[in-house]
Amino acid sequence: MSGGKKVSYSLKENFKLFTLNSNRPLAEEMAKLLGCELGKSSVTQFSDGEIQIRIEESVRGSEVFLVQSASEPTNDHIMELLIMIDALKRASAKMINVVMPYYSYARQDRKARSREPITARLIADLLVRAGATRILTIDFHSPQVQGFFDIPVDHLTGIPILADYIKEKALDDVVIVAPHNGGVVRARKMANLLNVPLALIDRRRPEHNETEIMHIIGNTEGKNAIIIDDLIDTARTITTGAQALIENGAKAVYVCCTHAVLSGTAIERIESSSIKELVVTNTIKLDEEKCIDKITLLSVAPLLVEAIDRIHNEKAVSPLFE
Amino acid sequence: MSGGKKVSYSLKENFKLFTLNSNRPLAEEMAKLLGCELGKSSVTQFSDGEIQIRIEESVRGSEVFLVQSASEPTNDHIMELLIMIDALKRASAKMINVVMPYYSYARQDRKARSREPITARLIADLLVRAGATRILTIDFHSPQVQGFFDIPVDHLTGIPILADYIKEKALDDVVIVAPHNGGVVRARKMANLLNVPLALIDRRRPEHNETEIMHIIGNTEGKNAIIIDDLIDTARTITTGAQALIENGAKAVYVCCTHAVLSGTAIERIESSSIKELVVTNTIKLDEEKCIDKITLLSVAPLLVEAIDRIHNEKAVSPLFE
Amino acid sequence: MSGGKKVSYSLKENFKLFTLNSNRPLAEEMAKLLGCELGKSSVTQFSDGEIQIRIEESVRGSEVFLVQSASEPTNDHIMELLIMIDALKRASAKMINVVMPYYSYARQDRKARSREPITARLIADLLVRAGATRILTIDFHSPQVQGFFDIPVDHLTGIPILADYIKEKALDDVVIVAPHNGGVVRARKMANLLNVPLALIDRRRPEHNETEIMHIIGNTEGKNAIIIDDLIDTARTITTGAQALIENGAKAVYVCCTHAVLSGTAIERIESSSIKELVVTNTIKLDEEKCIDKITLLSVAPLLVEAIDRIHNEKAVSPLFE
Amino acid sequence: MSGGKKVSYSLKENFKLFTLNSNRPLAEEMAKLLGCELGKSSVTQFSDGEIQIRIEESVRGSEVFLVQSASEPTNDHIMELLIMIDALKRASAKMINVVMPYYSYARQDRKARSREPITARLIADLLVRAGATRILTIDFHSPQVQGFFDIPVDHLTGIPILADYIKEKALDDVVIVAPHNGGVVRARKMANLLNVPLALIDRRRPEHNETEIMHIIGNTEGKNAIIIDDLIDTARTITTGAQALIENGAKAVYVCCTHAVLSGTAIERIESSSIKELVVTNTIKLDEEKCIDKITLLSVAPLLVEAIDRIHNEKAVSPLFE
Amino acid sequence: MSGGKKVSYSLKENFKLFTLNSNRPLAEEMAKLLGCELGKSSVTQFSDGEIQIRIEESVRGSEVFLVQSASEPTNDHIMELLIMIDALKRASAKMINVVMPYYSYARQDRKARSREPITARLIADLLVRAGATRILTIDFHSPQVQGFFDIPVDHLTGIPILADYIKEKALDDVVIVAPHNGGVVRARKMANLLNVPLALIDRRRPEHNETEIMHIIGNTEGKNAIIIDDLIDTARTITTGAQALIENGAKAVYVCCTHAVLSGTAIERIESSSIKELVVTNTIKLDEEKCIDKITLLSVAPLLVEAIDRIHNEKAVSPLFE
Amino acid sequence: MSGGKKVSYSLKENFKLFTLNSNRPLAEEMAKLLGCELGKSSVTQFSDGEIQIRIEESVRGSEVFLVQSASEPTNDHIMELLIMIDALKRASAKMINVVMPYYSYARQDRKARSREPITARLIADLLVRAGATRILTIDFHSPQVQGFFDIPVDHLTGIPILADYIKEKALDDVVIVAPHNGGVVRARKMANLLNVPLALIDRRRPEHNETEIMHIIGNTEGKNAIIIDDLIDTARTITTGAQALIENGAKAVYVCCTHAVLSGTAIERIESSSIKELVVTNTIKLDEEKCIDKITLLSVAPLLVEAIDRIHNEKAVSPLFE
Repeated sequence: MSGGKKVSYSLKENFKLFTLNSNRPLAEEMAKLLGCELGKSSVTQFSDGEIQIRIEESVRGSEVFLVQSASEPTNDHIMELLIMIDALKRASAKMINVVMPYYSYARQDRKARSREPITARLIADLLVRAGATRILTIDFHSPQVQGFFDIPVDHLTGIPILADYIKEKALDDVVIVAPHNGGVVRARKMANLLNVPLALIDRRRPEHNETEIMHIIGNTEGKNAIIIDDLIDTARTITTGAQALIENGAKAVYVCCTHAVLSGTAIERIESSSIKELVVTNTIKLDEEKCIDKITLLSVAPLLVEAIDRIHNEKAVSPLFE
Repeated sequence: MSGGKKVSYSLKENFKLFTLNSNRPLAEEMAKLLGCELGKSSVTQFSDGEIQIRIEESVRGSEVFLVQSASEPTNDHIMELLIMIDALKRASAKMINVVMPYYSYARQDRKARSREPITARLIADLLVRAGATRILTIDFHSPQVQGFFDIPVDHLTGIPILADYIKEKALDDVVIVAPHNGGVVRARKMANLLNVPLALIDRRRPEHNETEIMHIIGNTEGKNAIIIDDLIDTARTITTGAQALIENGAKAVYVCCTHAVLSGTAIERIESSSIKELVVTNTIKLDEEKCIDKITLLSVAPLLVEAIDRIHNEKAVSPLFE
Repeated sequence: MSGGKKVSYSLKENFKLFTLNSNRPLAEEMAKLLGCELGKSSVTQFSDGEIQIRIEESVRGSEVFLVQSASEPTNDHIMELLIMIDALKRASAKMINVVMPYYSYARQDRKARSREPITARLIADLLVRAGATRILTIDFHSPQVQGFFDIPVDHLTGIPILADYIKEKALDDVVIVAPHNGGVVRARKMANLLNVPLALIDRRRPEHNETEIMHIIGNTEGKNAIIIDDLIDTARTITTGAQALIENGAKAVYVCCTHAVLSGTAIERIESSSIKELVVTNTIKLDEEKCIDKITLLSVAPLLVEAIDRIHNEKAVSPLFE
Repeated sequence: MSGGKKVSYSLKENFKLFTLNSNRPLAEEMAKLLGCELGKSSVTQFSDGEIQIRIEESVRGSEVFLVQSASEPTNDHIMELLIMIDALKRASAKMINVVMPYYSYARQDRKARSREPITARLIADLLVRAGATRILTIDFHSPQVQGFFDIPVDHLTGIPILADYIKEKALDDVVIVAPHNGGVVRARKMANLLNVPLALIDRRRPEHNETEIMHIIGNTEGKNAIIIDDLIDTARTITTGAQALIENGAKAVYVCCTHAVLSGTAIERIESSSIKELVVTNTIKLDEEKCIDKITLLSVAPLLVEAIDRIHNEKAVSPLFE
Repeated sequence: MSGGKKVSYSLKENFKLFTLNSNRPLAEEMAKLLGCELGKSSVTQFSDGEIQIRIEESVRGSEVFLVQSASEPTNDHIMELLIMIDALKRASAKMINVVMPYYSYARQDRKARSREPITARLIADLLVRAGATRILTIDFHSPQVQGFFDIPVDHLTGIPILADYIKEKALDDVVIVAPHNGGVVRARKMANLLNVPLALIDRRRPEHNETEIMHIIGNTEGKNAIIIDDLIDTARTITTGAQALIENGAKAVYVCCTHAVLSGTAIERIESSSIKELVVTNTIKLDEEKCIDKITLLSVAPLLVEAIDRIHNEKAVSPLFE
Repeated sequence: MSGGKKVSYSLKENFKLFTLNSNRPLAEEMAKLLGCELGKSSVTQFSDGEIQIRIEESVRGSEVFLVQSASEPTNDHIMELLIMIDALKRASAKMINVVMPYYSYARQDRKARSREPITARLIADLLVRAGATRILTIDFHSPQVQGFFDIPVDHLTGIPILADYIKEKALDDVVIVAPHNGGVVRARKMANLLNVPLALIDRRRPEHNETEIMHIIGNTEGKNAIIIDDLIDTARTITTGAQALIENGAKAVYVCCTHAVLSGTAIERIESSSIKELVVTNTIKLDEEKCIDKITLLSVAPLLVEAIDRIHNEKAVSPLFE
């Protein structure tokens, strides 16, 4: 990967990088790294909520990379994306590579109960129906979501970025903690990168009883506990988890995650929690009022531009995983 | 059509009427007319904006009619609809009839300039991709939108409802006015129903000049002018048109339309305009604060339930057009 | 656009221009302008009416532009086109760009009454199913037909060609006339280009009465009236319209249209009508016996080759609209 | 099968039998046998060749059987069929069973030379794309054409009808003759039914020599030779074959075929040939002027209605093959 | 669910239950419970390995339930299934419900490394392409595989069957053990049903070192450890896990799983392991030589027939999950 | 074609030749002729029969040619192929050209009896669904199988290779013999190439009688009879045919075929038959124990690489047929 040293990219004439409205700062950082301008387009939302998109330069025959995170307001951002894809397709773009650092509705990836939708598959279908020819994304909620597509998916991971940051802190007595039963495989990957042990916060909800019961499995006493998750939404899971870890003797609790959704009162919860530091990436634009001191923000832009360069120049993307 | 007299409908056991959130009062009125309960389902919007839908009763083998207008907030309502269709499909509904009294993005039905999307077609594709098996709707912006689907579309019209209301007013010296060049065919239909003449507000925008020039073609002097349009959004077109008609000697200006979008400052514009009365239908839920005295609200529920009964019982829908 | 000055085009090696039988003179004019040969192929119609096509040179990896107007005999020409597309696809053509100066069945673009087909959409589906990858066409009957395709459509317009010709005549007191209620938007475009006023022939058919009633809305007295339409088929509409204009005091009546279908007794009707001049383009091959003195024929070949060059070389086609 | 005895059919309420223009007498015979009326529809061909179809009665929820042979003028009949299917689909027919006694373009079922289309597959694709849900047909040129569809195909054969007729003639010394190298399997089937031997007219065209050389393989001397083919188009093959058989000592030559295309000068050729009798079925409407004395016409109506009844009532169609 | 008491099912006339070769005893048990005959069909494998299928009774208009586990020899069983679906589709079956108690290739549900296939999605696509209209299955490897389909999937679980059996054993001091990091969610479900605690065998493979390191997280000392997994293939994971549990002080080790793949030397491994009892279901036919004493076999037939009855009679399947 | 002289091929950088397991020697011969390395990939079959494929080098943007004959074990080889195509598609290969020298299930190309599948079409659908973009193959069982695909098919023939070999033998009094009624067209082609006469072994199976009756039509007495077929499976047809020819006075019997399936006891049958020489090609790998003296093996590698070169460099493949 790019590391600290300056990298220069060779883009062909038909390369175009466009962005929509969800995460313009990230797209601008990517454009700067790539040494290109962002494509000209306008996205207008009328007073009745309808979105109008116009592409202001020719894309005929272009290999377009279109940056859009499906972050809040999710549905508007998804519709923006679908409409832009339709416009690109009708304007004769050759390739429509959707760069979706954060893929929304990813938690709705199976029917947990009867008569539920599988919205993560639905979104995949909508993207392909509109005309997307490739998806470039980071840390799906479950890796199986790759299989919801039958177009190529380049699925990157932000875990090494998070692990590198933790490594540099040179903490002693580290234990990686999965914050819930579904997070053990991800935690194992992080533990491998740092070569440290693993623990699990086992959660269950007894019948007819609202209160979730947490039980820490594994040794966390006197340790620097690093909770890892793919996304943090309301922050309830990680703040209650951190509390449990502290109560069970952990020295300090750090939290790492790729996608900082941080909706509702998440920031207040984190602020008042026993979490010492929350390390996130910029797959989702972090509004200024959310940039509290406890939060460390790492950039995925170098990772994304490296992948884009490899895709554009038809080189293997696999070295980014090694 | 049902008219004033009581109609009773015979619904088979596998009939289900569901609604989403955009226009619950209309759906409830329809359920009452049909003599059935609305299907049980819950739609939750999480703090990050994602929608979660659960259907609370079996729909296996059912002929579902699902009511949703794609009104403001448009994108949320479209996503609600798509997700619900996915859930119904996966829950083994036999038929998923989408009842969409107001079809949004209908004005984006062609590329007016280079590199624009055709969003009305995109929406059609998304609905079919998700699993819709029929569309029942009222007054597309252009009738060609029917051709954007390759599933059956039952396309009703609210114009006779509006015409009947005007007829009952027994105004003298009536002229129907198309508010812009694209509205003449619709105005001709209204004029036919009332057997009165036609006029046109011809609009153009001279180059390098922001101000639109209006020119009234046809005789409107001393007459009761009835402007007819399919939808009223910001109300700019009809209020400027009404003003021009009054300035050119019209006795009074009435406005009829099917879809009362009325976004932004539309209500204020109408309130302060020279429009005497605005007649609309309830394809879109009119919020209470928008129910000003000038507005008359007519219901499309009898029209829709009559159509649903005919579709459900496999009788011709064509009598509704005669 | 090319204007009067000589333009030269740079075609890549894999460029191929083929034509079928409907409008060979236009294709030959295009080949001459492009400086290329027409691709070799044979189209045979057997005595039982079946068409056999053979492509006589390799098209492997080629960007094929295939010229065919769906003019009379429409169904034979459509089948020719579909069969040729199938042959090109199976012969490994890389791109199959269908150049369809006249798109037939375009008036069947909506269900006007119950249980009608939407044949314009059907044709779009058949073309895409056979293997077309792009449509290049001129003046659809309604612009919404673009949305019947989900492949790129380059939709050119012949109106500026017609307007330029009228401009050169330097007539005074010109008024543009829409020949029926559905033609106002098109007439407005023509009026904009010539900067002259607009009128409308409002037509209606009273119940139980075969005779259509025409009413001229707008001022045409003492003026040079220019009727504009997209296509002229039986010529009934324009000849009755011209008569009405003359009876209402018009000085002279000119008619412009893009597609000269001119079927049945159209030529006789025009010959004996009060139309002074009929200006058409060669999107449809005008048989010699139809080339009467009243008809002026303008070529769309320069427009088409300019578009083809831009598509082939992946330059924006939008300048052709400015 | 129905044989001579009276059969009565039980049709459900949603059964509809429609016909288009290619073979109305056959459809009427079928309606009579089924004891039903033909569905009301109108097919108009405008002066420019475009076809307009209107269905004059409700087909909502119906199981439609639509009779159309793709006979001369082939392309008009195919387009009629596709447009009618589109209309039925949009009018909410439940099943669209295409009854195509003669499937055209069936000889173009493979690429015999480079860059040829496979039109028989194309037609299959077009039918399915338009909305057909089943094909009921008789004697494809090659049985593999069944595999060009991925909807159910009920493929009947007229050979037993022809064989029964020949059997009743009680000829002695019969030999079945395949008229060309591709017809041996069909001839074998006929020979099996009649329990008689087989011969073959082996044809080849020496290089640089237009004249085809025929060579009779097998013993035909002094015999009643029965040539069998699936279709007779220009009649060149069978008349030259008959001549060769007579020259090689055959006592008499009879010809059987299912599809009497008989285009161009076929009738004259047959009239002046050494063929004693030509036995055909009515899958294609035989115009009166073609009904010469030498031709015996057998009806496939009983076979088709038996199949339709079985399909409609969900009984096995297989007994029709035994 | 059916429990011990006798249940009787009401099957409509068009109900058909077919089986292929992978698990005939299960299908026969199901037929007996349903009170129906198995549909007649023959599956022949030629000496070159090609499979030939013939359906020996009419399936026209039938709701077919087709039983096939994709067990060893997997590829033959998958091809059998695809070919049978094709035959059913072409034979006009109305519904093709694939009952696949064991869905193979389910572990290949994501790209774990670059350039891997996602075979579980591929199989889903192949089934749908062939013509399957519904999948009824038990315990996918990951629940996300449901989203690989866009037809309805009825996804049952065998965990309650396993849990009920364990409950009846009335063991004391039970702990549920996830045998690897990816199995915690499943183990949590089992633990919930039995209301007992959870432990995890954390596995990792240090770089450049073949030997996997196991670490038991959670308290298993002196306990009856119940390992739960979805499938057991080579039995390496569970036998090494059992060994580790015993070494760490577990009183006894039981293993539960739904799918007894038991390939290669699995039986030998289990026989010689410290596993006390292996409880499996009959989703895969257990060959006689594999029926060792340590293995307890539970039937999923009552669960499957209950689901089939509910699907066939359009009743909710959800009660089977409660 | 390449003939004896050395040919050199110019491959672009993105050219990749991969093989799977069915016919590695042929792929290696092809690689040698092309002067390239075979792409690196691994195919593992687990003990439960599941196949795992990993591509060991980047294929991003590549034009992949993937060699796999669907020979015995057919189903494993088909699944290998489908899985590899899925992996290539997800790994962003640009073109996936499937080189299938032997296409299996080709005899199941029509419904010979009721309720049979059309497996040859199914295989085509599966290949396209998985992601194949072209098929390169040799001698389908029937040429109509080309029409089962709607992607380009390059269909080569091995008959000239066989004919050239026979020509070199300079036999006198040669007659080409079709071994069954369906083989006459193929035999005619061979006879044309050698300019010799034709005969036919007419086979029928009298009712209620297992023994097939053979009857030789055409003159074979005292001649060198060359039986030609597309494939030889159990060898029953050709050995009984050879016997019949010898009994009817043939001097010697040679057999030619493209695909040497030779399953079951085929080798024994041939060994003990009156066949003098069996000439086959290497479309299927001939195991060493099958390489008996009577069999002559000709290579199709030069033909295939010539075709691949032409496809890769977008030159006409048609010269290979001339």
